[in-house]
Amino acid sequence: MLESLRGRDVISILDFTRGELEGLFEAADSAWKLIEYRPLRGRLVALAFFEPSTRTRMSFESAVKRLGGDTLVVTGEEAISVAKGENLADTIRMLDAYSDAIVIRHRFEGAALYAAEIAEAPVINGGDGRQHHPTQAMIDLYTITKLFGGVDGLTIGVLGDLRYGRAASSFLLGLTLFKPKMVYLISPPQLRPREEVLEELSVRGLRFKEAGLMEVLAELDVLYVTRIQRERFPDPSEYERVRGSYRVTLDMLEGRAKKGLKVLHPLPKVDEIDPRVDESPFQAYFIQARLGVPLRMALLAGVLGGDGVWS
Amino acid sequence: MLESLRGRDVISILDFTRGELEGLFEAADSAWKLIEYRPLRGRLVALAFFEPSTRTRMSFESAVKRLGGDTLVVTGEEAISVAKGENLADTIRMLDAYSDAIVIRHRFEGAALYAAEIAEAPVINGGDGRQHHPTQAMIDLYTITKLFGGVDGLTIGVLGDLRYGRAASSFLLGLTLFKPKMVYLISPPQLRPREEVLEELSVRGLRFKEAGLMEVLAELDVLYVTRIQRERFPDPSEYERVRGSYRVTLDMLEGRAKKGLKVLHPLPKVDEIDPRVDESPFQAYFIQARLGVPLRMALLAGVLGGDGVWS
Amino acid sequence: MLESLRGRDVISILDFTRGELEGLFEAADSAWKLIEYRPLRGRLVALAFFEPSTRTRMSFESAVKRLGGDTLVVTGEEAISVAKGENLADTIRMLDAYSDAIVIRHRFEGAALYAAEIAEAPVINGGDGRQHHPTQAMIDLYTITKLFGGVDGLTIGVLGDLRYGRAASSFLLGLTLFKPKMVYLISPPQLRPREEVLEELSVRGLRFKEAGLMEVLAELDVLYVTRIQRERFPDPSEYERVRGSYRVTLDMLEGRAKKGLKVLHPLPKVDEIDPRVDESPFQAYFIQARLGVPLRMALLAGVLGGDGVWS
Repeated sequence: MLESLRGRDVISILDFTRGELEGLFEAADSAWKLIEYRPLRGRLVALAFFEPSTRTRMSFESAVKRLGGDTLVVTGEEAISVAKGENLADTIRMLDAYSDAIVIRHRFEGAALYAAEIAEAPVINGGDGRQHHPTQAMIDLYTITKLFGGVDGLTIGVLGDLRYGRAASSFLLGLTLFKPKMVYLISPPQLRPREEVLEELSVRGLRFKEAGLMEVLAELDVLYVTRIQRERFPDPSEYERVRGSYRVTLDMLEGRAKKGLKVLHPLPKVDEIDPRVDESPFQAYFIQARLGVPLRMALLAGVLGGDGVWS
Repeated sequence: MLESLRGRDVISILDFTRGELEGLFEAADSAWKLIEYRPLRGRLVALAFFEPSTRTRMSFESAVKRLGGDTLVVTGEEAISVAKGENLADTIRMLDAYSDAIVIRHRFEGAALYAAEIAEAPVINGGDGRQHHPTQAMIDLYTITKLFGGVDGLTIGVLGDLRYGRAASSFLLGLTLFKPKMVYLISPPQLRPREEVLEELSVRGLRFKEAGLMEVLAELDVLYVTRIQRERFPDPSEYERVRGSYRVTLDMLEGRAKKGLKVLHPLPKVDEIDPRVDESPFQAYFIQARLGVPLRMALLAGVLGGDGVWS
Repeated sequence: MLESLRGRDVISILDFTRGELEGLFEAADSAWKLIEYRPLRGRLVALAFFEPSTRTRMSFESAVKRLGGDTLVVTGEEAISVAKGENLADTIRMLDAYSDAIVIRHRFEGAALYAAEIAEAPVINGGDGRQHHPTQAMIDLYTITKLFGGVDGLTIGVLGDLRYGRAASSFLLGLTLFKPKMVYLISPPQLRPREEVLEELSVRGLRFKEAGLMEVLAELDVLYVTRIQRERFPDPSEYERVRGSYRVTLDMLEGRAKKGLKVLHPLPKVDEIDPRVDESPFQAYFIQARLGVPLRMALLAGVLGGDGVWS
């Protein structure tokens, strides 16, 4: 199954079939066994984080090193100073010369695809622009699969910034590869998904509806929360007014939600989830964070691994 | 002996018994043999330096990698940006998800203990607040043990900032586990140890006295020097007045000290030690810096190592 | 051949004989074979980049890790903060205590030599001051050797900032170890090589001449281009006037150059080479960048490797 991953670029969650994702999830289930086998021994993965993200960077770094490989890290300002004057193409060629695979994070839409066109080595999108963060979507879908045995038939709410947040956007696109019963989009009007995303969801036959949180909370199996950033609101008083309606509290969950509801969040979270939820059975975001390592191990082993890694 | 270290948090030097420290020193003596054995193969140690410290970070990184393990490093501004908005607990949970042990450095008193309460992985305090820097104290005591065959019966001067410097404070606490003949505390009045530390030393039966350097120099076997930072003095002229009395010169040592006196310093030093001391037989601080790696190797192998590492 | 490298410091390209360089180039040809052998297993190389250089740092890091070793990285501001107050000698002693070899990059002339005097471990100059960048010169000469079978008898143009650029300067010094037919120095008057460099080239019997680009382009086998930095010109209009004459375009090459001409550049480049050259057969700078890794692998294995690495 994972042989189809070998040498592949990973740009969008829609580059994958449902079957490939399911194969990946299965591989992730036994990823820890790979620690002994060390399939990335002698291999180098460049982590080029033009936009800093400690969490995603460390998760990838952990995955590479658990597999016996090593990393070449360029982050933040240093990465920007590479590019100072030098064009992105030359920077990518440099990374390509020094490593066997490139994970790239960039604030510009399309940066990962552009890198993939230039580099001979496989390129993995660690998040670019507003739409794509495919490995996060894989982790989200994998977490749901672990918790519920699959994604089909579930009722899923996606809450927060659905317009600028690439995690939410990728997750929604990823859901189109499965058959959830219903997906509720829960966001302030300013932060509704962009038209092209809504259209893609429709074209791909996803059953979804825009809704308010309290309206649908009782129906949900999964509540996927993302942060609403103050900076998205030109008028601070508007932010203050809106924010309370998109905060998830323990009282709210205990009062209205199904007992088996699971709350996901790509993290880091700030105050959009009541810290009391952390200790409750609703919490699934720390589990989700932990599953990021085996999922990325499985992906990297699939993309980079030699013969026999998965056979 | 080192089996008692397995999985332990390392928060304060007082978490350890004298016997455990002596076992650790013995293990450090043969730590280089572990390079071949690679007991940390496949293991990851997160180095979370919220407060930057190149020296301590590199010493730990060297120890981990010498043992065949690998590190996940978060430092300085990057670490702070992890925490931007995100609470420390969530940051610790992230590190816990990605690694097998966490070394933490933080300016807040108690940060390491707090981390240890949250993380499942063992937490090693790489220095927090004003009081604790247990691995530095271990190195100091180990260095004295190597130089003099032990700590008991020695006359030891501790010079400099005994109030805000966590290295000096940890060293003093560590001395209470042994039986030095006498410990002289040598500091400007503003930088005397805090009352709670003095009380702890008394309760634990350490024989100590406050004194002036020239008064006691002839008696000393060990002179432990720490830096006096200009910023501790509200009045710069006060700093200028005081500083000369706490500077160690070669002339002073040659004129008054025992031939066998050894000068220690946790480093980095600025101008509190005359550079001519560097080339003299009094100098032991570079030896001390070198011993940091095998000591930390022994500690990490004890905390993380599998069966048979030390047997 | 490479046994003569064991434990050596690498400060200037002139520390090496022609025979040693040729031996190194041969070793670089088979450097990839070392990946399986992992001759640097358990060894640590400190990369101390007081002046940041992502490219050189990553190339060394890639080489060390391909050989099975690991790195301790200190860069930019962090490195500077090590040195804040602490003298460079103590910083070097720290690196020496934690690693088996030190690669140093520093803006001060002579920093690498000074480090080599202090450190017991071998020191490799990753570029210091305005004159020395020996590993870059090795890569340049190796690239020419790969492309033309050798350096002797070739006509070589060196274009750009020959005064402040350490890559150009090291390359010129390196050429004196071989017998090119002619070396043309092509630079604005303000950026001519310094007198001491010109004298060294004369004393060492290199055949060279200052010239204009269009005048000599038709003769060249190799055109080595370096960047002209705006900051070198006190008067910005002077920079604007000069710059066009030192820019290499595809039209120019297609109109005048030999078919077999190869353009080299130590990278990063900005706009001194027309991007259309990238896709043309004249381009050799990306090849040159790729050859940096095996060359540095061969060098590190020679300096650090144990018995039998190369036999």
